[in-house]
Amino acid sequence: MRAFNFSPGPAVLPLEVLQQVREELLDWQGGGTSVMEISHRSKAFVEVAAQAEADLRELMSIPRNYKVLFMQGGASAQFALVPMNLTAAHDSVVDYVNTGHWSRKGITEAARYCTVHVAADAGGSYTRVPPQSELQFSGAAAYAHYTPNETIGGVEFAYVPDAGGVPIVADMSSSILSQPVEVAKFGLIYAGAQKNIGPAGLTVLIVRDDLIGRARPDIPHVFDYKAVADDQSMLNTPPTFAWYMAGLVFKWLKRSGGVSAMGERNKVKAQKLYAAIDASALYRNPVARDARSRMNVTFTMVRPDLDAAFLAAAAEAGLLGLKGHRAVGGMRASIYNAMPLEGVERLIAFMGEFERRHERR
Amino acid sequence: MRAFNFSPGPAVLPLEVLQQVREELLDWQGGGTSVMEISHRSKAFVEVAAQAEADLRELMSIPRNYKVLFMQGGASAQFALVPMNLTAAHDSVVDYVNTGHWSRKGITEAARYCTVHVAADAGGSYTRVPPQSELQFSGAAAYAHYTPNETIGGVEFAYVPDAGGVPIVADMSSSILSQPVEVAKFGLIYAGAQKNIGPAGLTVLIVRDDLIGRARPDIPHVFDYKAVADDQSMLNTPPTFAWYMAGLVFKWLKRSGGVSAMGERNKVKAQKLYAAIDASALYRNPVARDARSRMNVTFTMVRPDLDAAFLAAAAEAGLLGLKGHRAVGGMRASIYNAMPLEGVERLIAFMGEFERRHERR
Repeated sequence: MRAFNFSPGPAVLPLEVLQQVREELLDWQGGGTSVMEISHRSKAFVEVAAQAEADLRELMSIPRNYKVLFMQGGASAQFALVPMNLTAAHDSVVDYVNTGHWSRKGITEAARYCTVHVAADAGGSYTRVPPQSELQFSGAAAYAHYTPNETIGGVEFAYVPDAGGVPIVADMSSSILSQPVEVAKFGLIYAGAQKNIGPAGLTVLIVRDDLIGRARPDIPHVFDYKAVADDQSMLNTPPTFAWYMAGLVFKWLKRSGGVSAMGERNKVKAQKLYAAIDASALYRNPVARDARSRMNVTFTMVRPDLDAAFLAAAAEAGLLGLKGHRAVGGMRASIYNAMPLEGVERLIAFMGEFERRHERR
Repeated sequence: MRAFNFSPGPAVLPLEVLQQVREELLDWQGGGTSVMEISHRSKAFVEVAAQAEADLRELMSIPRNYKVLFMQGGASAQFALVPMNLTAAHDSVVDYVNTGHWSRKGITEAARYCTVHVAADAGGSYTRVPPQSELQFSGAAAYAHYTPNETIGGVEFAYVPDAGGVPIVADMSSSILSQPVEVAKFGLIYAGAQKNIGPAGLTVLIVRDDLIGRARPDIPHVFDYKAVADDQSMLNTPPTFAWYMAGLVFKWLKRSGGVSAMGERNKVKAQKLYAAIDASALYRNPVARDARSRMNVTFTMVRPDLDAAFLAAAAEAGLLGLKGHRAVGGMRASIYNAMPLEGVERLIAFMGEFERRHERR
């Protein structure tokens, strides 16, 4: 039986996609091999790769002056590769907005390469997003970085910051493709695949042409955006199976109505879950209402002694991966694109039952 | 129908492994999710990761003073990450042996970080391996690098170079696990997974403890061997599916008799194919006999006008991926661990038939 899997990432994938993968795992396109056994330079795989890019471009309406890159190393590698690629000068200033665990990691890594100016710091408990009026950009930065959605705090920007012409760089790992975004507002978008795109091990980048070719001379060649772009992300052997699966997820998204329809569905899923939390006497969400994540719904219980019982009973009921990050404790339901509304409804029903059961005692 | 797939990489995987992957793709260990949908920090996945390492250690008899690392970026990323990790000083000298396309790429990349001393150059046609007596090590290098097997030329070392105490670094991408090696002779072994380990997107490193912690301060944190080792290769989200599959391949190797048995089988496969080539009037292998690769058997035809007809008829007969690299032309049969003897025999039979058919005309 298939469980409802609320894991923060690697995360649930669309069932239809997994079924197709299983179906063709040993004999892909009737060629007598698995897709993961063929050369990345074969005509068949080059078509898979190009189709995935074309579908992503269509889904996100990516303008022509942006390149799409398929890399390895995850967002954490990009924490270093972004400054290495975008600041040829070692004394560059870069602006970062700190709204949580992942922004902070990005800042720590960037500070090894540049002078980091923190444009706003929602530090401490990370339960809010600073409004545009609070963002103090340095005015002279090579780029301005922020994290649209923070998976650990469960905090999400409801707007795209404006840094006055300085290129906006976004770690969109946990929110890419979850709703429409205007790509033209960004200089660079990067995302680890393992939440809304496909299996772990693939990183997708969308980078404006003018930001390509600014790398430090000592960047590893395979991580230089220009070299990667010039070779259609086939400079070295790419993670072909993950790329193929990303392509299947993009097709599934298109069949499902694209990112607009997905955005509506995600809004409904999140609203229902937050409404259930707010209406209960047992569960609490500490995040400011205008900053609540549509992707990662965190909650604690007023009786933390029940945490273990909650998680055990949830798992028993086929509701998995609900344990919160150790930094904030409590619970977290990650409800990415591939989590159906039914899963959220089942979670809400379970939470209600659990609350009633423990009221009676 | 399953074809015989001679692709140089991504390459054929053991059929049993693919069958198991298919079997449990939607419901792994009865947990109601795919293995690729669960957190890398979950108990279940941590066990997969640890078991894969334990099995690799057993297969290769890896001594205790070596760490096993699971990284991303392939061998091409290591071309930069090796010097970045092993030479903290920018004026370091490093020794490289050049026996082909991949050694040369390694040299080009290392030269961006260090002073490269070429200890021997089998350049030009790359059809031989220099003997130990020809290797002119600098005597003062931070490490000495070589490529035990060159996939494009089809050239393989029959011995492990001795650099007089300088740590030997080997790009073992295309020969790891294909026969026993004495790990203690190496300072660092690295290998992209996509030939003898699993799907593309995973890199396996075996590194001696004393070589860990020598990185340049400006190396991206997630690529610093010390940071990776300290966090059991879970510093950031690893390519979990590829890691899981590597584990299944290691189990398959153990069931198949380990690397000794595999080495015997690989020797037989290669000997039969080279014997057929040598006995024919149509096919030629240009590599010195003591340097012929057991993994990548290259051959040309005395009538290169027949190349296209050969490849088309081979594909028709279910023998795939035989086109040689454009740098050398002709044909190449990659016969990694997962290529059964039957596939090699079928290829030999086909080559014989093709030769007879074209003699008659």
